[in-house]
Amino acid sequence: MQALIDRIKQEGKVFPGNIIKVDSFINHQVDPELMLAMGKDFHAKYQDQAIEKILTIETSGIAVAVTTALQFQVPMVFAKKSEAASMDKNQYQAKVYSYTRGKTFEIRVAKDYLKAGERVLIIDDFLANGEALSGLISLCEQAGAEVAGIGIAIEKTFQPGGEKIRQAGYPIYSQARIKAFEGDTILFEEN
Amino acid sequence: MQALIDRIKQEGKVFPGNIIKVDSFINHQVDPELMLAMGKDFHAKYQDQAIEKILTIETSGIAVAVTTALQFQVPMVFAKKSEAASMDKNQYQAKVYSYTRGKTFEIRVAKDYLKAGERVLIIDDFLANGEALSGLISLCEQAGAEVAGIGIAIEKTFQPGGEKIRQAGYPIYSQARIKAFEGDTILFEEN
Repeated sequence: MQALIDRIKQEGKVFPGNIIKVDSFINHQVDPELMLAMGKDFHAKYQDQAIEKILTIETSGIAVAVTTALQFQVPMVFAKKSEAASMDKNQYQAKVYSYTRGKTFEIRVAKDYLKAGERVLIIDDFLANGEALSGLISLCEQAGAEVAGIGIAIEKTFQPGGEKIRQAGYPIYSQARIKAFEGDTILFEEN
Repeated sequence: MQALIDRIKQEGKVFPGNIIKVDSFINHQVDPELMLAMGKDFHAKYQDQAIEKILTIETSGIAVAVTTALQFQVPMVFAKKSEAASMDKNQYQAKVYSYTRGKTFEIRVAKDYLKAGERVLIIDDFLANGEALSGLISLCEQAGAEVAGIGIAIEKTFQPGGEKIRQAGYPIYSQARIKAFEGDTILFEEN
């Protein structure tokens, strides 16, 4: 998606450890017009998939998940993160390891909001090692919901998450695919 | 705002300790059409205030802050929460006590995204004791930004936050104002 790629080129900041920060328009300050355009782009990609629910994870996925849900006219659910384990029979839970933070946390969705047979579009801002995305897929599987599509804003294709999850048979569409960093320069996959 | 009040009457759940849960359309599952209508309502209220930025706090404020920012065509910034104190000279910070969780946490905004003289509309989902809102106001004051308005989805008018912050001179518009709970029944202020 060219508008997102252009914005990343203009404002994305590269940090050691293959980290890219997009705090000025996605992760801290948010550009609502860009979020709307991204929501429309996800809708264009998955509009024939009879999507019934958008699933994301707090916090940074929420903005684009809302604009995407607006296009599909379906509810959005955000999984909640917690560092503490809990046993609540009313929730689906999955463990997610965060490479950024170097620890494992739990993500949860109330059973009321993810149902058997529901066709779910998972939306998230980043895909790198695929830990959070695998956790969201696990929540859907526990519910018996169907992952009808996955929409990612920024994928780092040189990290293994996308490959692993595509090989497991899940369709992933990423709007901007970063293949490498060369110093401060961000290189994108051709298309 | 009648659409929100009606939805709270239909789906809001009252819990001991004057807690109301609106997990089915705001705090966990999110109704994007309602968020859009709420954003339009905030815009109608504050459209003559030359708003330049929307400020909210993660997590539950983000959805309605995005739809509000779309109406004003200005950026949205969400303050980040942390349990750990930090000293980062590039951030404004404020301490917020959470009655729900019984502990104090920090909220932060990068100085890059809140500027002196900027006219800010603060948006949040709940107002009760006013702790989070006071923290957001403090961030604006530290930045020299002007709080041009405050928009709240659900205010519990029997708790002291709204009164305290209005008396300090800040304009607050709340879309649904709950004056009391009688058993499972939610009573709203007349208008």
